[in-house]
Amino acid sequence: MTKNNYWMCGKHSVIAALNNPRRKFYQLLITKSCKDELSSLMQFTSKEIGCNVHIVESKEIEKLSGLSTATHQGIALMVSPLDPVSLVDVIKKTNSKSKSIILALDNITDPQNFGAIVRSACAFNTDAIITTKNNSASETAALSKASVGTLEKVDICVEANLSNAFKTLKKHGYWVFGLDGNAKDDIKLLKKYDKVVLVLGSEGEGIRNLVRDNCDVLIKIPILNTDSLNVSNAAAIALYESTGN
Amino acid sequence: MTKNNYWMCGKHSVIAALNNPRRKFYQLLITKSCKDELSSLMQFTSKEIGCNVHIVESKEIEKLSGLSTATHQGIALMVSPLDPVSLVDVIKKTNSKSKSIILALDNITDPQNFGAIVRSACAFNTDAIITTKNNSASETAALSKASVGTLEKVDICVEANLSNAFKTLKKHGYWVFGLDGNAKDDIKLLKKYDKVVLVLGSEGEGIRNLVRDNCDVLIKIPILNTDSLNVSNAAAIALYESTGN
Repeated sequence: MTKNNYWMCGKHSVIAALNNPRRKFYQLLITKSCKDELSSLMQFTSKEIGCNVHIVESKEIEKLSGLSTATHQGIALMVSPLDPVSLVDVIKKTNSKSKSIILALDNITDPQNFGAIVRSACAFNTDAIITTKNNSASETAALSKASVGTLEKVDICVEANLSNAFKTLKKHGYWVFGLDGNAKDDIKLLKKYDKVVLVLGSEGEGIRNLVRDNCDVLIKIPILNTDSLNVSNAAAIALYESTGN
Repeated sequence: MTKNNYWMCGKHSVIAALNNPRRKFYQLLITKSCKDELSSLMQFTSKEIGCNVHIVESKEIEKLSGLSTATHQGIALMVSPLDPVSLVDVIKKTNSKSKSIILALDNITDPQNFGAIVRSACAFNTDAIITTKNNSASETAALSKASVGTLEKVDICVEANLSNAFKTLKKHGYWVFGLDGNAKDDIKLLKKYDKVVLVLGSEGEGIRNLVRDNCDVLIKIPILNTDSLNVSNAAAIALYESTGN
């Protein structure tokens, strides 16, 4: 186990992880009452699960995970973070598709926002999330909890250079749209394009200049009274709009 | 000062609070560098601000507020929570309007989600947020930080009984829409109505049965692969849709 392994908590997240063939896990802690509640979904034996299963008190999970009972929900799984998916594999998967959306997250570091974005990406059938190698939220208990199990279902690519990734994706028919409060065009543009990369920057700074320069079009969500939305809220609206709703 | 007073932190939140005539505040702590940065917006003297101003080191704000430097941004204001607005006043304000949207939050307790919802409510010109007296996030540093100053701009009503509030609003021409993943109707319905109350329930439980029974129509956001969205993300999409975008 590497130092990045962590206690994943919460029923949705842990059940999704146990059912994900790509996920490596090592030890399951579960309370008696949680085990009883989830017994219709799977048998919580070491043989069935594929790792050691310990029936414990809620406070033991609290002590190990550092999370309250309300947060860990009586279940914790020691996991390794998922291996990133390569951009080559994302392109292979999407090449034959007539429609595709990929999210690019430029320096989004808040785990709650990142997790909520993964959840919306899953809900709107996003083909992949591309994120930066540096200055990006890493996979942690907080991030996986906020994704409510959807982290297991969304392909995440980690790229050293987003602009290079855009170049590759443009060659494969994608149009790169940057979300920017100062843009002239409206997010309604999104639904007119079949293959879209949607770029979101950090809340404070927005998309970095070099990344912005490599977008094909800048678009904005029409808002009043304030400068910006929470980044996961903005992502949700743009993804909703891009699906042609 | 009551026990509910708190240290509000962050540049956007504190500046908005200082400019809000409804906000009571008692003491401002600011670092020298933050003061210099914000000097074009206002003079940070006790006379100008209307309360004692102390130039302090960042670590002093950290100690008092319990927040990291990245979070407090070198500025903290001891404030009282805002007094709620009465439903009568909300109706007075909206009676002459041809279009109006009001959000009703049923047991939303997470301050980050609540704050992000306030931010989206502000951005999409929501006339008020109605929240429950019990089991609702109260005004705290985390909530105001997540609202990024918009808490000062959105009217918040606190009601003991949401269903009673719906009855009153229905008499004044509002249609009450409950967001529910199992609904048959789509959120596209929202834009066909001029006066809308949009009801959101907690993530785990959704809208409570009694509250749901008092909705006129249940509507859903069309999603795939997962059961639900983060509640602030769902609110953002529904508010975006309701504005006729």
